[in-house]
Amino acid sequence: MNSRAEQELKAFICSIEPADKAAVEQAKRRQAALAKPIGSLGKLESIAVKLAGITGRIDNTISVCRVLVFSADNGVVDEGVAITPRSVTLAQSINMTRHITGMSSIAAYFGDSVRVFDVGIDTEGEFEGVVARRIRRGTANIRRGPAMTREEALRAIFVGIEAVEQAKADGVDIVGVGEMGIGNTTTSAAVLACLLGAPASAVAGRGGGLTDAAFENKIRVIDDALKLNSPDPEDAIDVVSKVGGLDIAAMAGAFLACAKYRIPAVVDGFISIVAALIALHLAPSVREYIFLSHYSAEKGYRLAAEAFGEEPYLLLDMRLGEGSGCPIAFRVIQAACAAMNGMATFEQAHIDDGYLDELRRKNGDLT
Amino acid sequence: MNSRAEQELKAFICSIEPADKAAVEQAKRRQAALAKPIGSLGKLESIAVKLAGITGRIDNTISVCRVLVFSADNGVVDEGVAITPRSVTLAQSINMTRHITGMSSIAAYFGDSVRVFDVGIDTEGEFEGVVARRIRRGTANIRRGPAMTREEALRAIFVGIEAVEQAKADGVDIVGVGEMGIGNTTTSAAVLACLLGAPASAVAGRGGGLTDAAFENKIRVIDDALKLNSPDPEDAIDVVSKVGGLDIAAMAGAFLACAKYRIPAVVDGFISIVAALIALHLAPSVREYIFLSHYSAEKGYRLAAEAFGEEPYLLLDMRLGEGSGCPIAFRVIQAACAAMNGMATFEQAHIDDGYLDELRRKNGDLT
Repeated sequence: MNSRAEQELKAFICSIEPADKAAVEQAKRRQAALAKPIGSLGKLESIAVKLAGITGRIDNTISVCRVLVFSADNGVVDEGVAITPRSVTLAQSINMTRHITGMSSIAAYFGDSVRVFDVGIDTEGEFEGVVARRIRRGTANIRRGPAMTREEALRAIFVGIEAVEQAKADGVDIVGVGEMGIGNTTTSAAVLACLLGAPASAVAGRGGGLTDAAFENKIRVIDDALKLNSPDPEDAIDVVSKVGGLDIAAMAGAFLACAKYRIPAVVDGFISIVAALIALHLAPSVREYIFLSHYSAEKGYRLAAEAFGEEPYLLLDMRLGEGSGCPIAFRVIQAACAAMNGMATFEQAHIDDGYLDELRRKNGDLT
Repeated sequence: MNSRAEQELKAFICSIEPADKAAVEQAKRRQAALAKPIGSLGKLESIAVKLAGITGRIDNTISVCRVLVFSADNGVVDEGVAITPRSVTLAQSINMTRHITGMSSIAAYFGDSVRVFDVGIDTEGEFEGVVARRIRRGTANIRRGPAMTREEALRAIFVGIEAVEQAKADGVDIVGVGEMGIGNTTTSAAVLACLLGAPASAVAGRGGGLTDAAFENKIRVIDDALKLNSPDPEDAIDVVSKVGGLDIAAMAGAFLACAKYRIPAVVDGFISIVAALIALHLAPSVREYIFLSHYSAEKGYRLAAEAFGEEPYLLLDMRLGEGSGCPIAFRVIQAACAAMNGMATFEQAHIDDGYLDELRRKNGDLT
């Protein structure tokens, strides 16, 4: 518990501040003054209010958007938990930089930038466009032992932090957090099962499309890995290093850094929400900086979102990963800003006084 | 049943063709060839496939987007069914053209155009920016008699058709269908109750925010109106003319015209889905041209969406109307196109042959 990296992370986490409560209250008053029935913009209102808490101002513009992708392989694929061979982690990581994958083609359409970080792809060498931060060539097989050392997990977390620091330097207004890593629905389910004290069967899904037999095997593998490694659910770094992945650790670091630097962060799907839960365990105020995007179709997502305590905006039955929900959620958040910034108040709307007075009474005279 | 307008509408409806089945099949094959687990883009896949059926091509681009708003007053507000005075219909219709309402500020942010049609605002004169097509100064009170004559309903339907014809002439790629009309959650609930054979209590919601007593009154008013007017649920024009509104009729016309001219149409919330149901009763193939946007928080929405047979993409707890869900749904549909057009196939992704072969087997050799 005394390594230099550990101390650095503790200091980093201690420097995370909660959201700006005064700005939140100011944003709520503004929403109540806008010419609409109270609450009628639903989550668009709560998004605008939450953004105010992050930036400290009520008139936010989200123009420069970026998806961060953390790529890593997982030794547990040796257990037959994935339909897809591990070589796809590298292939798709490269393809993302060429904007020909699901997430990256959507991001390119909307003009969002994509940065791919190799935190642990099982390969040699470096690849153009992929930021080389490989900590090891994939994790060890969690059914045989811990995925990685605690120090390796800490190093991965700092890669995530570095990615957000670069985004901040580049003037990015919002960050989406995605991943590429064959086998990572297995590691994510293992982390989630540990954090929630749930059996693997409650949180594991079929990932890329397992058969019944392969799915049953996946559940056994996760239960075995948890029994063998017995990670401490009170120690999130212990959990991610013993049964998680380098991708999950880096993503958790990115969420922590978004909170530290007050940049709104968007969760993608199942792996991303599990990483956000790790960050939440390390620093409870990260919740105030994180937006969910879509209800992933991967089984454990809803339980994880419930544990996180936020709700997504999109119901698209997606389960691709990569960060594919993020560029769509960016548009929802932009819409929330557009309404907050563009709508007239009751006064400005020239709506007649009787109506105005009635709504003033309903709104508790907040206009 | 023999008026000229009635005959014209029948001819118009008869000329609506079903979606292009060959293009749908081609789009499905393309989706299966894209480098991702089968079905992992969920509704983004079905959106791209549906668009192919509408346009007849698989590489669609949705650039020019427009929200059509049909504004009209409703005599039934005399029964105390709305918290908001009827003057707000005019005020907000004008405000939409200035982009200072909820929907119009979001549309302006994304560069979508907005066209507002006065089909029956209770006022005199014309207003800059609002297309003057007033059929009457609001409907009659449906608790005392029919909302309008059958001929008036037909004229309103043709205003909706005209609005889409203008959009087509302007090169619009997708149309959202919204409304402004104080009291129109009451008329929509009356139409829906009649179409589904359900009691008002099953479909009526609190609109802009009614108290318990006012909400109970609203339900009584709807049940009374249905009993008094006894519209024929098999005759959608009878339903909309007796217990509906000029806005709903015009919106139904817009949906019909989108199907006729093969322009994708997007439903907003409760009033919009009820209008889409009217169009569906008149021409069953309109379903192939219509996309839902968000799960409106207004009570009857989910029943109506179920009856329509499609699912929305957004879960935002919105209940503002205006068409406010449309500019957000446009982005979801653009994302679906971006993935369809931008993603590599398995071959192009240079994913290794073993993986390729395995997925080929799963996909039934569709690549």
